[in-house]
Parts: sequence; C-alpha cells; structure tokens
Amino acid sequence: MDKKITRQDLREAAEKYKNWGKWGPHDEIGTLNYTAPEDIVAAARLVRQGKVISLALNFDHTGPQGAKSKYPSLGRINPLHVMLRTGTDAYSGVLDHRGIRAADDLVVMPLQCGTQWDGLGHVFYENNMWNGYDCREVTSAGAQKCGIEKTKNKMVGRGVFGVKVGRGDYVIVRTGQMEAKLAAGNWDGYPGGDAPGFSFETIDWIHRNQIAAIASDTWGCEVRPNESEAGINQPWHWIVIPIMGLTMGEIFFLGDLAKDCAADKVYEFMFVAPAIPITGAVGSPANPLAIK
Amino acid sequence: MDKKITRQDLREAAEKYKNWGKWGPHDEIGTLNYTAPEDIVAAARLVRQGKVISLALNFDHTGPQGAKSKYPSLGRINPLHVMLRTGTDAYSGVLDHRGIRAADDLVVMPLQCGTQWDGLGHVFYENNMWNGYDCREVTSAGAQKCGIEKTKNKMVGRGVFGVKVGRGDYVIVRTGQMEAKLAAGNWDGYPGGDAPGFSFETIDWIHRNQIAAIASDTWGCEVRPNESEAGINQPWHWIVIPIMGLTMGEIFFLGDLAKDCAADKVYEFMFVAPAIPITGAVGSPANPLAIK
Amino acid sequence: MDKKITRQDLREAAEKYKNWGKWGPHDEIGTLNYTAPEDIVAAARLVRQGKVISLALNFDHTGPQGAKSKYPSLGRINPLHVMLRTGTDAYSGVLDHRGIRAADDLVVMPLQCGTQWDGLGHVFYENNMWNGYDCREVTSAGAQKCGIEKTKNKMVGRGVFGVKVGRGDYVIVRTGQMEAKLAAGNWDGYPGGDAPGFSFETIDWIHRNQIAAIASDTWGCEVRPNESEAGINQPWHWIVIPIMGLTMGEIFFLGDLAKDCAADKVYEFMFVAPAIPITGAVGSPANPLAIK
Amino acid sequence: MDKKITRQDLREAAEKYKNWGKWGPHDEIGTLNYTAPEDIVAAARLVRQGKVISLALNFDHTGPQGAKSKYPSLGRINPLHVMLRTGTDAYSGVLDHRGIRAADDLVVMPLQCGTQWDGLGHVFYENNMWNGYDCREVTSAGAQKCGIEKTKNKMVGRGVFGVKVGRGDYVIVRTGQMEAKLAAGNWDGYPGGDAPGFSFETIDWIHRNQIAAIASDTWGCEVRPNESEAGINQPWHWIVIPIMGLTMGEIFFLGDLAKDCAADKVYEFMFVAPAIPITGAVGSPANPLAIK
Repeated sequence: MDKKITRQDLREAAEKYKNWGKWGPHDEIGTLNYTAPEDIVAAARLVRQGKVISLALNFDHTGPQGAKSKYPSLGRINPLHVMLRTGTDAYSGVLDHRGIRAADDLVVMPLQCGTQWDGLGHVFYENNMWNGYDCREVTSAGAQKCGIEKTKNKMVGRGVFGVKVGRGDYVIVRTGQMEAKLAAGNWDGYPGGDAPGFSFETIDWIHRNQIAAIASDTWGCEVRPNESEAGINQPWHWIVIPIMGLTMGEIFFLGDLAKDCAADKVYEFMFVAPAIPITGAVGSPANPLAIK
Repeated sequence: MDKKITRQDLREAAEKYKNWGKWGPHDEIGTLNYTAPEDIVAAARLVRQGKVISLALNFDHTGPQGAKSKYPSLGRINPLHVMLRTGTDAYSGVLDHRGIRAADDLVVMPLQCGTQWDGLGHVFYENNMWNGYDCREVTSAGAQKCGIEKTKNKMVGRGVFGVKVGRGDYVIVRTGQMEAKLAAGNWDGYPGGDAPGFSFETIDWIHRNQIAAIASDTWGCEVRPNESEAGINQPWHWIVIPIMGLTMGEIFFLGDLAKDCAADKVYEFMFVAPAIPITGAVGSPANPLAIK
Repeated sequence: MDKKITRQDLREAAEKYKNWGKWGPHDEIGTLNYTAPEDIVAAARLVRQGKVISLALNFDHTGPQGAKSKYPSLGRINPLHVMLRTGTDAYSGVLDHRGIRAADDLVVMPLQCGTQWDGLGHVFYENNMWNGYDCREVTSAGAQKCGIEKTKNKMVGRGVFGVKVGRGDYVIVRTGQMEAKLAAGNWDGYPGGDAPGFSFETIDWIHRNQIAAIASDTWGCEVRPNESEAGINQPWHWIVIPIMGLTMGEIFFLGDLAKDCAADKVYEFMFVAPAIPITGAVGSPANPLAIK
Repeated sequence: MDKKITRQDLREAAEKYKNWGKWGPHDEIGTLNYTAPEDIVAAARLVRQGKVISLALNFDHTGPQGAKSKYPSLGRINPLHVMLRTGTDAYSGVLDHRGIRAADDLVVMPLQCGTQWDGLGHVFYENNMWNGYDCREVTSAGAQKCGIEKTKNKMVGRGVFGVKVGRGDYVIVRTGQMEAKLAAGNWDGYPGGDAPGFSFETIDWIHRNQIAAIASDTWGCEVRPNESEAGINQPWHWIVIPIMGLTMGEIFFLGDLAKDCAADKVYEFMFVAPAIPITGAVGSPANPLAIK
C-alpha cells in the first residue's frame, strides 16, 4: 500500500462496513450472529476422528507479557497463580483439623494476557462502541453493554484453517510468529511489536464473507507496523470491532493444529471456544478447541 | 445409611476403587481417559438442532462466595473484575495520545469460586494424590503433577442428563439447589452448607460405569451433612478424586439445560467444557456447553 | 440543622473555603503544608515516656469490608493475603533445592479497605480536584496529580486527641463507633452506614484552625445520614478534599490511644503515620503511630 | 574469607548467636525488644530541624522486580495498582447517580517487592523459625506466629547512619547500589544478583551491639555471591532471622538521606518506619522516615 491510512479513510470505512442495527438495536454480540443453528449441526458433522486439539497457550509466568517491547504493557502482566492451600500443607498436617486434605488456588490475570477473545467492548470508534452504544457504557465498573458474558452461548461453529470461507465461520489464521518465538525461547518483540497480520484492506473480504470471528497466533491479529499515518494506532481494530462487530481471538497457539492438518489434510473442524462469562469483561481467556 | 463412614471404610474403599496405574505410571488425568475418540465422534452426532446451552453461572460479585456459611471460605471470594482502561477514559480524551481508544481488564479470581472443574491435584488421600503421586508435588508454586493444564485436550464427550450412562460419559446431575438459591435471591447456606448430592455409596456406581467426569449444580457435588464420623469431611471426595482419578464439576448452572431437555425430551448432547489451562492449577473456571 | 444542604450551599462553601493556589499552582498536598519544621521539632518534644501506640486495625479478612450495608462496596473487599512460599513447603523439603527455607507473601488490597489515608485525588468537585487540577488527571492509569506518593515526606507532626488545636496539627477524633463494632463482634452497618462524624458546619472550624489533617475511627469521618438534599452524598467531602485540600484518615483504631490518654491525662503526642507511596494512588493503608 | 561457609559453620553460629527464649517463650518480635522506652525518648530528642526524609522507593511498575536476574523471582512482581473508580468516570458523568464524584483503587503487591521489612516468619532454620517456633506455623493461611502485625507498635527508635552504634538502634547501611541502578535507568542484576552487603562474619558484630534492626539499599542486605559452599544460599539470613530474631529492611532508598547527612553532618536521627500490620504476613512494605 503506497498511501498511509488517514482519518478520512477511517471515516469512509466506518460508513461502508458499519453493521450497527443489523441484528436490532439491542444486539451486543455482532457477527457472532452469523452462525446459524444449521451451521453448528454441519460443524458437528466434521467430527470424524474424535480428535481434540487445544489452541491455547498455557497460562503462566512463561507467557508473552513482560517481554521486551516498545509498546507499553499498561498493566498486562503474565498470569499470577497463587495457592490458597497446598499439598505441602497437607503433608505438614496443618489441614487435618478440617477433616480433609485439599488444595485450592487463585489467579490474578489480565483478561488479555494469553490466548483470548477480545470482546466488543474492547475498542471504541470515537465515542461509540459496537452497535452505536456510548463508550461511557464501559466504566470502571465494567462493560454495561457488550460484556463478554453476552457471548456465553456462542463460540461454536465451523473452524476453518484454509481458504474456503463461508458465512458464520470461525476463521483461524496462522502466521507462525508464535511458534518462532517459542522456538527462540523468548518473546521479545511479540507483545506490541512488528507482526504479520491483517491489513486494513482485509476488512472488505471479512465483511463480504460474513464470518463469525477471526483468530490468529499473534499478539493482536493486525499487521504491525500499521499502515496508517501518525496518530492512528491499529486502524483495522478501529473498524472491525466497534463498527463491524467482529469478535477476534488473539495469542492462539496453532502449532499442534497446523501439524495435524498437514498430516490429515483436513483443514476444517468443529470449533468450540467458550469465553469465561465474566460479567462486564471486555475480553476473556479461552481454551479454544478444534475437534475433528 | 445407618452407620457412619469410618476411616476403616475409607481404607477399604481406597483399596477397592483405586485406579492408580490403570493408565500407566505417568498418567495425570484419570478417568478423563475413559472417553475414546469414537465416543467423541458419537457425541458430535448428537448435535441435531444447532443449539448451544451454557452451563455457567456468570462470574461476578453476585456469585455464591461470601454467603453465610458455617464452612470457612479460606480465601474463596467472588471474582474481582477491575478495569485497566475504560470507555470513560476514552470519552475523557486521555487515551488519544495512544492513537487508539481501547479498554482492558483484569480479574482476581479463586479458581473454585464459580462454575468450575476440580482438578486431580485438589484433594489428597493421606500423603498421596491421583495415581499415587506424592502430595508434596502440590507446593506454593502450584501442582507439578496433575495440574489442570494437563486436561487441555479433554472435556469433550457425550453429556448425559438422564439415567442411561456409559463409559466415557460426562454425567450432569441437577439437584435444583442452585435454582432455588437464585430464585430466593441469596446464597446463604450454599457454600459449604447442607446440600443434596452424591453419597458415599454412589462411588461403586461411578466406578462400574466408567464415566469420564461428573458435575452438579451444588457447591461441592457431595451430599452434606456428610455421612461420616467426626473428623472426616467430604469422604466421597477422599476417594473419587485421589483414588479413582475422577474430575468433578461444581457450581454448574443447569436451569436452562433442564428447561430445554424438558421441552425437547432429549437428555443427551455433545458436551464441551474446556478448562483454562493455568499451569499447575488445581481447578479451573469453565463455561461448559451442552450442544444439541 | 433545620435546612438541608443544597447545591447552592456547596457552591458558597466552595467559594469561601477554597485554598487553591495558596501553596502555589503546582501544589499537590494541600493542608499538609501547614505543618512547619518547628512544629515537627515541637511534636518530638512531646515524646517523654517512650511509648508507641498503633492506631491501625490489623489488615485481614476480619476487617469491616463485606459487612451488611446499604452502601454499595464498589470493589472494596477486605485484604486478601496469600502466600507465595510457606513454612509447610519448608517442612516438606520442597524448598531445599534452593538452599534456603524462606516464606514469601502477597496482598490484594483495596487501598481504602482498612486504616487509611484518603489522598487528594480521592474526591472531585465537579470537574476539578485539589488545587484546580482537572479530574481527568485521575485515569485508569492512576492519579497523575495528587497521588499519595506526593505525601511521602509528610504525616509527621503533633497529634491532638483533645480540644486545643493549632495550625499544622493532626487532629484525631474518636467517636467510639469502631470499638462498639469490635465489641459487638460484627461490622454490620459500619461501611457506609449511619455514623457519628463531622457535620458540614465543622468545615469552618477546620478552615480557621489550619489543621494539617484529620482522622477518625469511622468508615468515612463524615456524619451519616448526611444533612444534604437528595442527590448530594457526603457534602463535607465535596468541600474538604478537593476545595480545601485536607487529607483525611479513616478507620483509625483509637481504643488503645483512648485508654492510654485516660490513664496519663496526656492528650497530645508526636504523630507519625507515613503513607505507603504507591505511585498514583488515591489512598493508602497506614499504621499511624502516636508516640508519647 | 578463604574458606567457604559450611553447614557445620552454620550449626556453630546457630548455637553461638541463638536468642531463643531471651524475651520469654512467647516472644514474636526478637531484637526489636532491644529498644527501650528511654531510647525512644532519646531518639525524639534528635529531632532538631523538623526535617522528614523518606527512605522509600515509590511503589510502581518501575520498581526492581522483573529485572534481569539469574535468581528466580518466585512470584515477586512489581506492584500492580488498579483503579476501582476514576476521575474520567467522574468527567463522563457515570458517577453522578451516586451523588459524589470519587475515585478508589486497589493494589496487588508482593509484600517484599519494594522498600520493606522482612518479618521473623520469613526465613527458617531447618524446621524452626524465630524463638524455636515450628516452621509449620507458616502455612498457606499465613504466619500464625511472628506475623508482621506483631510489630505494630515497634519500628521507632534511633536511626544511625554512621559508625557509633548502640543497643536498640536501627542501623541503616548504604552501599550505593540502588542509586547506581537508578542512575543507570535499569535494575538488571539488582534482584538476586551480585551485591555489596553483610558478610557472615558481621553476625558477631550485630550480636554484640544488640541492635534492634538493620536495613540497607540492596535487594537482600546480604553480600552476594554468598561466601558459602554449594547448597547454602544466603547463610547470613539463616542465622540472623530465625536464630537471632533480627528484623531486616531491604530495598531502602538512601539517596536523599545520604545527601542530607553529608550536608548537615548529622548521621543520627529519629527513625519511624511502621510496618503495615497485615495479619500473618512475613513481610511488609514500608515508608521509613528519618526525622531530624
């Protein structure tokens, strides 16, 4: 692309790709609506081998947050998993007065720290979020509109890891960047750094194909450096989340799926990736499953 | 049951129902192994209407933790969801120097605070956990054995909400207690209180049927008050988790599923309920899906 | 007071008691400036017996948060203290590979959950905070102005627990409410409930006496129910924090101090109560000391 | 030192410097007992100029945790400060239904992440902690003995930043390492890395001088690399905390104090550094004050 994306380009794209009202004035889940019951039935028909492949990176201190980056992390740390009771407590006899030896635990976790869904409350276009809701619906008390809990019966459909894409599909795109970082043994440059990914012009393709959601193995799905003029960060996000209502998955681990598809030459599968319905959340960790 | 369960009864049950070694000396997932690939294919065949029903309670401050209880909560609080950036920040213009208006969030969440899986590191029998591992494998640094992340490709199979149960099934049992609490508008007595649930003698039935996992709508699956003599708390747990290797789901919301099954008379479905693979965790929040 | 406090009353008080600019346009600590070096020297001269009395309630799950209240807690929970390593780990031998047996811990703590200072970023008057700063200086990233860390060399002076009050004093007022709750064994009604405390008309007295700070043994210092018309919550706070620049201490435990003063008849002391300088915080837990 | 410190050396030191029982069998604060009331009175007499100098590093994401280190951080992160309500919420009008515009916040903070006191529950010698208590008193539920809250009326006395040291003093030792790291603009090598500090042989001097506590500007007070044979990490800690009962301060910021002392040539002062009395904690953040 020779020309940088400008605010005028964003205004034009916002006009052209706006899905506000398409599923009624009260809709809070956007393109997830594209997946119809018959698509789910058809997706289940793709289960022929009984294989389940997780697309999640484990959630722990070895995750990508905290790696070197010029992009400020703004509070995104790797998950902090702490124990409330342990097997060592049990061994030491200090639990026996309770009549049961049990362990318990707790996590402190930014909801976008690992494999995750971006909810529709995550990005605003000017003062609006998806479907035209006022951005002030997302306060310190959480997202009163478009919270991730609104998707709790969604994230089920055909997963596609190939080129033929249709209405209601969950499209999974592997760039290989995560696997390269894992092989290198460090995540420097991954969070907020340069990355292959969706360019601004892919918006048209996404719009035409009426996909339900899109996910990739990078930090933010979008190509970086961005193709935009100064002062516009993540222009693709500006349009696809608040204007189009597209749910997006990030930091998906696609190495196992890639190997499996290369082996059996089957690039479509049942995809089930429920968000944890944290009320008012603008994102959610997930363990997305490809079921073949 | 006329007679209280004694330590001798526990020793005998531990001997009788012990599955240690059944899936090799290195197994960390127990009865989840019962579900075979063909079971998953068959489960997918149950998807005929394209309906998805979440069995999760939303995760927020209205959850069951903190309710009146004689059972000490030991650090189990309701999830604390906090924002790292908001739509009000966006509206106030304080994000514009970043070139994008985006919200972000974080959760502080005991892993057993809401709809959840108990991992196999959750309960010990004397100094052992599932498959005979030493309980000292669960330290303040987490579960080095049987962490919930080991189940990341599991939790997929036939869900049954009826009486005919077979090998590898995920058995869902509704007592109605949660719906009663929700209707009453308060959770007093729910966490650790009296509850309908599995009695000690159900262990034999579970063992014979070789189910993959079991889940219910109560705080702890097990009947309370317990049927055991003083000093033995949750005797069913002592056996089914560390000895048998059974994964159990708790605080499942079964109201919507119950209504749906009553309407369509279909009490079996594809069940997909991936744990969030938090490394070393002894439990995980989940959004379990019944797919019909 | 016969007449309810109105918005017009607030406007008049804001005009009358405004200290903005008094310590220059860049000041971020308000009335803490009243304490001069000679006041600190004089305060130290009050130390004659070598007694140290803590005015802090211990920080733990028995604290006042979570008690019954009609006032929404908005995320204020009691401190959650969790261990990162334990003596039971040590006993179990799992730390020995490190060559040292050590315990470590972590706290999740709302900064206003227990004995605490309210910083000057805590309350706004319309769109302004102390000294006229824009309220948008307090974003999800914290308080860019008037963060509690700006007080790190303050909170030292004469503490007075009696009636003769002078410029630069730290005034401690005991209502007895906390001790009544502690004696009753439950905190119901304490957070946000009815309480003795400062009425709106005390603002004039506070202003004239040029005190450095004020602290009490209640949840919020201010009398409740408030004396204001509908829609105005905590009118005293509206003026004393953003307009006057007064730092206030809440949930101080004054039982031991009261007993001591009754015994030795000495109602003044050196007061040292450093805030923990958490950058950008709008409050801080403290362990305030009365030194006699 | 030519010879490495061995386990036999530790055993001998443990015998020689053991203070167990010195302040009775129930003591939980060790050498803090050395400071007598008259010492506090004398310390207050050192306040002649009315100057207050904070020895705290601000608590935020720029702190030393997370820096490059070969020493595993074991969960010690920099403080995570998050807002529960903000000035941007206020500006957006979303708080007005409450009748007050107020901000609130919360911190997630390892208690040893910044300027801090190590409590006596922090390090064990074999299976014992200070005064001979069983190390199993420090469970996942916290320290049942020697919790930092037991010091709530302590940490007041003469601070010395020079060579003449006496019974009951708080001894502050500046190595300059922190200032060097701050000047360099990064903390690499600070947490757990090589550092100037107390050698094993200083134990005798500390013991003889009967000091109340010691603090320094390094991560762990003790010299690193350690002078011990393989398998013994932090040998000085093994003795001074559990055997001698010495409270120690770490990560103190001493730059301002150093400049001040160089200017006025006064190297002693009143020292007030209250721990936050978090029940059962094995350490506490602090804002230590030198008052001159």
